[in-house]
Amino acid sequence: MIIIMNSQATKADIEAIESRLADFGFKTHPIYGETKTVIGAVGDKRRLSMNQLLMMKGVENIVPIMKPYKLAGRELQKTQSVITVGNTEIGGNKLTVIAGPCAIESNEQFTEIAKRVKASGATILRGGAYKPRSSPYSFAGLEEEGLKIMRSAGDEVGLPICTEVLDTREVDMVASYADMLQIGARNMQNFKLLREVGKHKKPILLKRGLSSTIEEWLMAAEYIMSEGNENVILCERGIRTFEPSTRNTFDISAIPVTKELSHLPIIADPSHAAGIAKYVGSIAKGAVAAGADGVMIEVHNCPEKAMSDGEQSLTPDMFDELIREMKPIADAVGRVL
Amino acid sequence: MIIIMNSQATKADIEAIESRLADFGFKTHPIYGETKTVIGAVGDKRRLSMNQLLMMKGVENIVPIMKPYKLAGRELQKTQSVITVGNTEIGGNKLTVIAGPCAIESNEQFTEIAKRVKASGATILRGGAYKPRSSPYSFAGLEEEGLKIMRSAGDEVGLPICTEVLDTREVDMVASYADMLQIGARNMQNFKLLREVGKHKKPILLKRGLSSTIEEWLMAAEYIMSEGNENVILCERGIRTFEPSTRNTFDISAIPVTKELSHLPIIADPSHAAGIAKYVGSIAKGAVAAGADGVMIEVHNCPEKAMSDGEQSLTPDMFDELIREMKPIADAVGRVL
Amino acid sequence: MIIIMNSQATKADIEAIESRLADFGFKTHPIYGETKTVIGAVGDKRRLSMNQLLMMKGVENIVPIMKPYKLAGRELQKTQSVITVGNTEIGGNKLTVIAGPCAIESNEQFTEIAKRVKASGATILRGGAYKPRSSPYSFAGLEEEGLKIMRSAGDEVGLPICTEVLDTREVDMVASYADMLQIGARNMQNFKLLREVGKHKKPILLKRGLSSTIEEWLMAAEYIMSEGNENVILCERGIRTFEPSTRNTFDISAIPVTKELSHLPIIADPSHAAGIAKYVGSIAKGAVAAGADGVMIEVHNCPEKAMSDGEQSLTPDMFDELIREMKPIADAVGRVL
Amino acid sequence: MIIIMNSQATKADIEAIESRLADFGFKTHPIYGETKTVIGAVGDKRRLSMNQLLMMKGVENIVPIMKPYKLAGRELQKTQSVITVGNTEIGGNKLTVIAGPCAIESNEQFTEIAKRVKASGATILRGGAYKPRSSPYSFAGLEEEGLKIMRSAGDEVGLPICTEVLDTREVDMVASYADMLQIGARNMQNFKLLREVGKHKKPILLKRGLSSTIEEWLMAAEYIMSEGNENVILCERGIRTFEPSTRNTFDISAIPVTKELSHLPIIADPSHAAGIAKYVGSIAKGAVAAGADGVMIEVHNCPEKAMSDGEQSLTPDMFDELIREMKPIADAVGRVL
Repeated sequence: MIIIMNSQATKADIEAIESRLADFGFKTHPIYGETKTVIGAVGDKRRLSMNQLLMMKGVENIVPIMKPYKLAGRELQKTQSVITVGNTEIGGNKLTVIAGPCAIESNEQFTEIAKRVKASGATILRGGAYKPRSSPYSFAGLEEEGLKIMRSAGDEVGLPICTEVLDTREVDMVASYADMLQIGARNMQNFKLLREVGKHKKPILLKRGLSSTIEEWLMAAEYIMSEGNENVILCERGIRTFEPSTRNTFDISAIPVTKELSHLPIIADPSHAAGIAKYVGSIAKGAVAAGADGVMIEVHNCPEKAMSDGEQSLTPDMFDELIREMKPIADAVGRVL
Repeated sequence: MIIIMNSQATKADIEAIESRLADFGFKTHPIYGETKTVIGAVGDKRRLSMNQLLMMKGVENIVPIMKPYKLAGRELQKTQSVITVGNTEIGGNKLTVIAGPCAIESNEQFTEIAKRVKASGATILRGGAYKPRSSPYSFAGLEEEGLKIMRSAGDEVGLPICTEVLDTREVDMVASYADMLQIGARNMQNFKLLREVGKHKKPILLKRGLSSTIEEWLMAAEYIMSEGNENVILCERGIRTFEPSTRNTFDISAIPVTKELSHLPIIADPSHAAGIAKYVGSIAKGAVAAGADGVMIEVHNCPEKAMSDGEQSLTPDMFDELIREMKPIADAVGRVL
Repeated sequence: MIIIMNSQATKADIEAIESRLADFGFKTHPIYGETKTVIGAVGDKRRLSMNQLLMMKGVENIVPIMKPYKLAGRELQKTQSVITVGNTEIGGNKLTVIAGPCAIESNEQFTEIAKRVKASGATILRGGAYKPRSSPYSFAGLEEEGLKIMRSAGDEVGLPICTEVLDTREVDMVASYADMLQIGARNMQNFKLLREVGKHKKPILLKRGLSSTIEEWLMAAEYIMSEGNENVILCERGIRTFEPSTRNTFDISAIPVTKELSHLPIIADPSHAAGIAKYVGSIAKGAVAAGADGVMIEVHNCPEKAMSDGEQSLTPDMFDELIREMKPIADAVGRVL
Repeated sequence: MIIIMNSQATKADIEAIESRLADFGFKTHPIYGETKTVIGAVGDKRRLSMNQLLMMKGVENIVPIMKPYKLAGRELQKTQSVITVGNTEIGGNKLTVIAGPCAIESNEQFTEIAKRVKASGATILRGGAYKPRSSPYSFAGLEEEGLKIMRSAGDEVGLPICTEVLDTREVDMVASYADMLQIGARNMQNFKLLREVGKHKKPILLKRGLSSTIEEWLMAAEYIMSEGNENVILCERGIRTFEPSTRNTFDISAIPVTKELSHLPIIADPSHAAGIAKYVGSIAKGAVAAGADGVMIEVHNCPEKAMSDGEQSLTPDMFDELIREMKPIADAVGRVL
C-alpha cells in the first residue's frame, strides 16, 4: 500500500509510520517529494488495519494496491467459472435464461407460466415465495406453500428453480426446495444471511445492491465464498440514480467490469432495472450483446392481475418474441440460445 | 388517486378502468382534456394494487394522493412523539447525545470511554457488539461478550445503552441487554428483521438506508410500528452520492422534511456521514441548528488503534469540546444540552 | 394539470384556486376525497405558471399531465426523424458510426486517423478543435487551425465532420467549417448557446448533461428547435453516479425511453461513458442491440501520446475489430453497417 | 505521483515508464511488491499528461499526490481570503446575507423587496436579469432593463448588488452594473465564461454545479483565478441525488471540506437546495452553525405571483423572522449578524 503524508508531516511522523509498519512485517520505501512524502509499504495488509494507520499523525491518505477480494477475484483463479444449477450450467457457452413471475400466486398460475417459458427457451424457472415488499401491507408471498408449488412445477417441466431467501432462519428450508438461492438487492449487505448461504453448496444468485459499488458487490460474493460456497453468480439489476423515467439505471458497464475483475458469471435482470415492461427487451438485448452470461426476465400470464411487479412483467407471448429477437444477438457474440 | 390515461386511450379503455375501480368500491371522476383524460378515484387504496391498474390498457401513469405510511405519518398522530429510553427521553426539549465507540473492544476501553462521554454530557451510550463489515476478514465484534461489557458499563455510569442487531435469530438476546436497538443502514430494508424488532417494545433507532428515499425510510418505520412497536427513532447518517471527499453526504434537509411528514424524533449521525473526524463537528452543529432531536457521535479513547472506524472517531477531548460548542447552538434553537 | 390540496385546505382555498384558474381560461373539476381534495384543470398551461399556483394557500402539490416539450416530443410528430448530415443520414436504416480523436492535434495525426476510420466503416468524422478541459492548464485545442485541418481531411476522405462549439461568439465560425455541431455535456443547459445554434440549420449533436434527466435533455432539444433548427440528434454519453470503476454510467435505458418520448435520433457515446478503452466495445455493442441509431467512438493512432482522453481511445486496429463485431449485431436488429 | 503497474507488467514495461518519466525530468522510485510493482515519481506533473502514462503498457492506475488546483488551494495561500464587495466584505467576521427575488420583475417589486431585506439585515442584494430557465417558453428576465432597476435600487438602499451572467458576450455589460457577478450552477463548467469573468476584477460568486465534485468546483475557481481575478466566492446550492422530497440535496459537508482545502469564502444557498420555502430556514441555520461565511436567500414580496421560483421564496416577513433566528446561531459560532 501507499501512505501519502500531508505537507505538515515531520520526520518523526514518517519514522513513526515506518516503525508501526515494521512491527507488522512490512518493508517500507519512503519517497520524498518537494512538499509531500509518500511511503510505499510491501507486506500482508490483512494483518494491519488501514483505518488505524490513517489516524496516525501526518497521514493524509492511504492507497491500497491489491484488491480486497481474493476468492471472487481473478488473482487466484484465472479461468471463468462455470456453475452447475440442476440440469444446466451458468457461465459457459450456452446463454442462461431465467424466467417466471415475480411472485408465486397459485399452482395454476405458476405451472402455466412454467410451461410457456420452457417452451420459449427458458433454462431456469424463477418465482418468489418470500417477497421483500416496501410496504408492510403488501402481499408478501405464499411462503413454504409457494416453494412446494415451484418445486412441483419445476419437476413437471424439467427446469431447475431459483427463489429468494430473506431470513437466516429460513435458509435450510428454502435450500431444501430450490436449486439456486437468490440474495436480493436489499440483502446484498445482510452479512449474516451471506454467511448462512455460504454454508450451503447450492448456487447463489447474488443481486447487486441498489447503490452498491462493484467492489462492495464482489466483497459480498467474497463473504459467501469465504464460508466455503464458491457457487456464486452475480446479477446486475440496475442501480439507483437521479433519473426518474426508469425504476433503476441498468449499469451495462458492470458486465465488462466484473468480467475483468472476477471469474464469476454475470446475469442481467432488465425487469427490475427498467421497472416497465416496454423497456425490458431493449435492455435484455443490450446486455446479451455486451457479454452477459444470461438474462433473468419476469413473465406473468396476466400482468394486469399480478400481485407484485405486474408493470414490469412480460406476457408469455412478449417473452417468446424477445427470445426470438435475442437469438441472432446471442449468435453474434458466440453464445447458444 | 389519479389515473392518467395516455393519448391513445379509447372510451372503452376508460370505461374498463372505471368498472374495475367500481368493483373495489371507488368512486370515479373522469376529466376530459384536449388530448388526454385523467380519472380521479376516491376510495381505500389498500384494497387495490396500483400496479395492476397501471397494466390496464390505455393507462399512462397513476398518481397517489395519500401517503403510504399511516402510523409513521402525521395524519393519525399530529403531536411530536417523545420516546423513553432508559432514564432519558428522545424527542422532547432536551437534546439527546448518543456517544461511544464504533465497536466494543474490551471492558477497559468501553468503560473508560463511557465515563468520559458521560462526564462531557452524553445521555445514551452506543457501541457495537455485532458489526456489519464490508470485508469478511474484518473484526466483526465481541458478540454477546460485548453486550455484557456494555450493560455493565452502562449501569456503572448510569446511562442507557444502544447497540445494533443484525440477525432475526439474535433479536431476543440483544434486546435482553440493550435499552435501545439499532437497525443499521444496510438492514433498513431487511423486512424480516424489521418485523422481528417490531414485536418487542424496546425503542428502535432506525438508520436511513444508504440510498433510501425518505418515503422508503418512513415505510421501514411503518413495518416496525405495524407489528406493535411504536417506539421508533429515525437516524439520518448520510446518503450515497457522487462526491468522494466524504464517506456519505449528510442530508440536512431530511431533518425538516421528516419533521413535517412524521411525528417520530430524528437523530443526526455526523460520524458515519462524514467518515472523517475533522468534519464531524461542523455537521453536528449544523444538524442541531436545523432542528435535530439529537446527535450520535463516535468517540474512541485511541482512534489510531480502533478496531473499526477509527478515522471518524473523536477523542474524548474533541468530544468534550464539541459538546461545549453545541451548547449555545442548542440554546439558540430552544433545546437543553 | 392536477392540483392536490393539502388536508388543511379550506373551501375558500379551493375556491381561490378555481377562481385563479378560471382567470387563465382553465376549466376546473374538483374531486373531494375523504381527507384531501384534488382539482383537475383543463387548459393551456403555458399561459400560467405552475410555480405561482404552488404558492397559493392550501396547495400541496401539482401534477402536470402534458409533457413540457412539444417540438421534441411525439405528440406533434409521430414519425421518426431522419436527419441529413453531409452525404449521410442519421436515424434511418443505416447505422451511423462517428469516429475520430478527442482532440485534433496536427494535420498528419487527424488525416491518418480519418483514413483509417473511413476504411473501417465510419460514416462521420469527429474531432475537437475547442476542448472543454477541467483544468485551465490543460491543452484546450488548436481552435480555428484545428477546424481547417478537419475540413480538409473530411473533404479528402469524403466524410462529413462533427465538432464541438463552446462559445456563443464562435458559433458562426465553427458552423462555417463543420457539417454537424456538437453541444457538449457541460453545455447542455447553456441556454444562450442552445438558442444560438438554434438559429443555424446545421444539425446539432446534443449530448446529455452529466446529471440531466431525460426530460431536461429533451427540453434542451426544445430550446434549439424552438429557434427554428429541427435537426437535433441526441447523444447518450453516460450519467454521473456513485460507481467509480467507470468514468460515467452509460444509461442504456435512455435508448428505448427517448425512442418512446421523442422522434429524434439517438447516438451512443461509449467512449465518454466508460472512460477506459477496454470497456468501450461491450457498451457499443450493447447500445446497438438496444436500438441506438449509431455510435460515436474515440479513435487515436497513438493513444499513449494523445493530448486528451487517450485512456478511452481505441487504436485504429481496435476500432476496425469493433466494427466487425458490431456488424452481426446491427444485422440482428435490422440495421445496415 | 504514483504509477501502479498491473500484475502482468514486465521488467521492460517498468523500464519504459521510468525512461518516459526521466525524459520529462522526473525522478523515479520503483517499489517491488509480491505481485505488483508501483513506481513513485517526483517532478512537475504539469509538464506531463497522466492520461498518456495511463495508456502505456503494464500500467493499471495512477494516483496523483498533489492537488490540481494551486491558486484556489491552501498550499500557496494559508490565510482565509476576505473579499470586498461594494461597501461590505465576504469571508470576514461579519456574516454575509445576500437576499432578493429570483427574477427582477419591475422597479416597484425590486425596490420594495430591497428596502425590506435591507431593514431586516441583508448586506447584499440579489436578483436575476438574465434567467437560465429549463423551458424556452418561460420568462427569461428583463435583461439590461433589469440591471438598471437593480443598480438604482441598490444605490437607493445602500447595498451592493449581485446578479448572474450567462453569456460571454454580456460580461462587460453586466459587469458595468453589478458589484458581484454570479456564475450559475449550470455554467460552472462553461469554461469560456469562466475565463471571461476572470478578466474582470469584480468579485465572482461561483455556484457549485448540479453534480460537480468539490475538486471540479475548485478547478472552476482556478479557471477564473488563473486569468487574474482572485475574488472568487464559492456558493453551495445543493447537489443532485435520488431523493425527491427536495429539489436538491444541500451538501453541508462541503462547508468544512472547502474550508480545509481552500482559502476562498463559502456562501450557502438554501433556497435552491430546498426548492421549497418551508425547508429554507432549517438549512440556512444549519449552514451558519456549520461555518458558512454567509447565506443567500430568495425573498419575494408576493411569492404566489413570482415569475420564477416562487415556491422557494420567503416573504419579507418570513425572511425577517429567519434573520432573527439566525442571530444567536451566528453568535454561537463567533460571527456578527
